[in-house]
Amino acid sequence: MEELAVLAGQIFRAQPFTALVGAELTGVGQDWAEITVFSRKDLQQQHGFIHGGVISYLADNSLTFAGGMALGGDALTSEFKINYLKPAKGEKVVAHSQAVSVGYRQAVCQCSVHAVAGRDSVLVAIAQGTIVALSPGSVR
Amino acid sequence: MEELAVLAGQIFRAQPFTALVGAELTGVGQDWAEITVFSRKDLQQQHGFIHGGVISYLADNSLTFAGGMALGGDALTSEFKINYLKPAKGEKVVAHSQAVSVGYRQAVCQCSVHAVAGRDSVLVAIAQGTIVALSPGSVR
Amino acid sequence: MEELAVLAGQIFRAQPFTALVGAELTGVGQDWAEITVFSRKDLQQQHGFIHGGVISYLADNSLTFAGGMALGGDALTSEFKINYLKPAKGEKVVAHSQAVSVGYRQAVCQCSVHAVAGRDSVLVAIAQGTIVALSPGSVR
Amino acid sequence: MEELAVLAGQIFRAQPFTALVGAELTGVGQDWAEITVFSRKDLQQQHGFIHGGVISYLADNSLTFAGGMALGGDALTSEFKINYLKPAKGEKVVAHSQAVSVGYRQAVCQCSVHAVAGRDSVLVAIAQGTIVALSPGSVR
Repeated sequence: MEELAVLAGQIFRAQPFTALVGAELTGVGQDWAEITVFSRKDLQQQHGFIHGGVISYLADNSLTFAGGMALGGDALTSEFKINYLKPAKGEKVVAHSQAVSVGYRQAVCQCSVHAVAGRDSVLVAIAQGTIVALSPGSVR
Repeated sequence: MEELAVLAGQIFRAQPFTALVGAELTGVGQDWAEITVFSRKDLQQQHGFIHGGVISYLADNSLTFAGGMALGGDALTSEFKINYLKPAKGEKVVAHSQAVSVGYRQAVCQCSVHAVAGRDSVLVAIAQGTIVALSPGSVR
Repeated sequence: MEELAVLAGQIFRAQPFTALVGAELTGVGQDWAEITVFSRKDLQQQHGFIHGGVISYLADNSLTFAGGMALGGDALTSEFKINYLKPAKGEKVVAHSQAVSVGYRQAVCQCSVHAVAGRDSVLVAIAQGTIVALSPGSVR
Repeated sequence: MEELAVLAGQIFRAQPFTALVGAELTGVGQDWAEITVFSRKDLQQQHGFIHGGVISYLADNSLTFAGGMALGGDALTSEFKINYLKPAKGEKVVAHSQAVSVGYRQAVCQCSVHAVAGRDSVLVAIAQGTIVALSPGSVR
């Protein structure tokens, strides 16, 4: 798994859009991944909350990396669905995704996104999607 | 509808994240909206295609604006689902959303996202979601 | 395509649940399928409308058959999403699904469900999903 | 909550389609509901597994009842998304739904569907959707 965690970090840092958003891969495991974005003015929407597009990027990308960890290599999101639950505000937003069903070629994953303000952590979105392996079983 | 189109443009330009992505509101109508992003290196993922997070931002935001036009005022996306169909490459990516069912408080909208390279236009994603009015019927 | 249309009819009639619901495969084409259910008391929910479960069965199954036609053989729904738009009432409910993106192994399809009462036809639900081929390219 | 559990049972038994499928409301709580279907030949698809339409009915209806419990009264599913994970076989299929975010007017719920064969219980589908209250706060 260590080799895979290193690969995940490399892929993550190779995403220019991820650098633009300023996201960090704050954790990976055998079948999960966590991505964090720290609040910045330029990530907001018109009412001062973190833009839904940032939340959906976080959900999408953490689903991809959770699926990639479970599938053992580079992966991409085939489809996902997200429900926004609350406006996102605070110092950071953290998306945690977990594979719930893993095949050879694809994994179905669930995601929870929390906004953290001081000691408060609020569930702001949940998502569910299908992740497809680019080269199944290449790294284990 | 003209007043509403002006409001849509104001809201769009008031989104800092939209400025970060460099998106433009390239069209609105009674029950639709079109948002365009021009390709830039920092919108890509690790294989040089436009990042899925940009595509989902485009889908999400164009769904919101289509719903807002149909509902007559500021609105937000309550939930949506997206299927990625092809890798997105080319000079620009255009998301077109259309309300297919409009109530007093919410609208259900569909979205098509095309990547445009020269004369080629490729359907790269479709989405479907629910848009909720913030202050129903405020502008008509 | 004719061979494939015959196969679609055979598969459809081999579904015991479809017989229980009383659904009919009222049309297929190269990349689409239409399934109709005629109203019956035992298909209703507590308020006298056609039960959402019948609508989602219709969406799911017509997505599968549209995908199967496009993919050239037996297929199954991997995932789908449905938005209910209006209560369904009238003599019949008709689901029409269309493949919008077709690969070797899977197709992404969209579905519209209409309730028909006399000359009125009301859009009661839309759906979108992924269909996977069981034995890709077996019949063309 | 007891009054609400009684109401849930009454609504459930008032659904003719639920009787046709032979589903039972095997549990409700403050923000959850469980519905069970016992296997029958006429609930199958063409390969002898429980039909996806039965699984989506179970997901949809258990989401509705979980949302109804959380919202305090009669409710309906506005939209949901389902991923099928494994073929469903065994003596029974059990859908368990839980509200994860509850407002005054709507709740977002998640659902897990298991197929039970003897001592084996297999996760066959997961779903996520939005439930809307018909008369908010009518029973608490």
